Amino acid sequence: MTKMAPNNQPAFVLVRPQLGENIGKAARAMLNFGLTDLRIVAPRDGWPNPDAGPSAAGADEIIEKAQVFQTTAEALQDCRNVYATTVRKRGLSKPVLDPKKASQEIRRNEFKSAILFGPERSGLETQDISLARTILTIPINPTFGSINLAQAVVLCAYELSIGASLIQPTVSDLEAPATQKDLEGLITHLSTMLKKKGYFMPPDRATATQKTLRNILTKPAWSENEIRTLRGVLSTLERKDRP
Amino acid sequence: MTKMAPNNQPAFVLVRPQLGENIGKAARAMLNFGLTDLRIVAPRDGWPNPDAGPSAAGADEIIEKAQVFQTTAEALQDCRNVYATTVRKRGLSKPVLDPKKASQEIRRNEFKSAILFGPERSGLETQDISLARTILTIPINPTFGSINLAQAVVLCAYELSIGASLIQPTVSDLEAPATQKDLEGLITHLSTMLKKKGYFMPPDRATATQKTLRNILTKPAWSENEIRTLRGVLSTLERKDRP
Repeated sequence: MTKMAPNNQPAFVLVRPQLGENIGKAARAMLNFGLTDLRIVAPRDGWPNPDAGPSAAGADEIIEKAQVFQTTAEALQDCRNVYATTVRKRGLSKPVLDPKKASQEIRRNEFKSAILFGPERSGLETQDISLARTILTIPINPTFGSINLAQAVVLCAYELSIGASLIQPTVSDLEAPATQKDLEGLITHLSTMLKKKGYFMPPDRATATQKTLRNILTKPAWSENEIRTLRGVLSTLERKDRP
Repeated sequence: MTKMAPNNQPAFVLVRPQLGENIGKAARAMLNFGLTDLRIVAPRDGWPNPDAGPSAAGADEIIEKAQVFQTTAEALQDCRNVYATTVRKRGLSKPVLDPKKASQEIRRNEFKSAILFGPERSGLETQDISLARTILTIPINPTFGSINLAQAVVLCAYELSIGASLIQPTVSDLEAPATQKDLEGLITHLSTMLKKKGYFMPPDRATATQKTLRNILTKPAWSENEIRTLRGVLSTLERKDRP
């Protein structure tokens, strides 16, 4: 097993984790399989957390280098493909992959991906999931489906490591998806235009409508060039008609 | 692959585990993947252990039914094939399998197997390993090879469950792409709007620009519902601003 190059290693993003112990165990599990890009969003008990170090059991470098963010969107700015781990059906129109298939896809891609893991008690919120292009579901006992956070992390890390040195480069002329930052720029641009036209009325439907739009625009995996073209399209539509 | 009958389910044998918390987490991990035969050899802090229940997080039946033995040999009396999890080379002449290969072998067999897991700090002793026919080694980062007990358990349970019918198939609620007719409707709608704004000027670039737009809108494989939403978005943008 060769280590994946740091810049195409997927980021493991713990969203609002509750227990420092689980953060430490997640770090240990990642390093067990050669992964080092840990990101933490709004940890319940703040950061640093004194419980994380001891349960990392030697994976201190992962804990020390972990990046902390206030929101999930901020944690994903440089990522070009995002997977949300969840078991529940949410009525979201997104492809669903198991850890093996998702890992194969991540390894095949040459660009930065991220995997989102939700808080211990409740899992990811719909809002977090809507940032992702793909759902990652661990196939589990349907009558006992609550999996520990660090356990979910280790299963994904393990699958990512399998055959890491055996994969063959697949040549494709498909451009990498744009970063989440560029994607957010497009979503914001369109939303701002629509708001002026009263699209998000009545207000009690606004959140659902925003979510639908976000899903529609996240799905395509548009490249940076394509996003740039679409920003041009939007700017054009903001103009006055030509005579 | 059919569901394993209870009597050919492998036993997971925790040898001299130190922490009740890890016993509970191991139980939870087993039940997550439909496994119920937990055996405990000489737990350091005796049995029952008050820390096991809370960390089992609902897998109480596994904890309650767990069998406790004084020696590893006693725990294995009814087993016909034994795997010892260890990373270190011990100079023992035994075949070495990874979790996937071992799981395939266990599922193929119709008889009772057991997997031995060593204590947190030190792993299995040579004496325990000598009871096994096969070594089970998790392929791991050679520079950080210390894996948490419950993590080793969950990886083995996960591999055993793969292809077993007890786990839920991964289902996607992704809708079929819209028909080409609906897609054309969207492309035409946008092109018409852009034409009014002078987007396709100068005229000698118009064909290339149309092609770029078509590629961008064809890529997402949007569903009929999504196309309908986007038509609504375009119609909204054609409106006058709301005051």
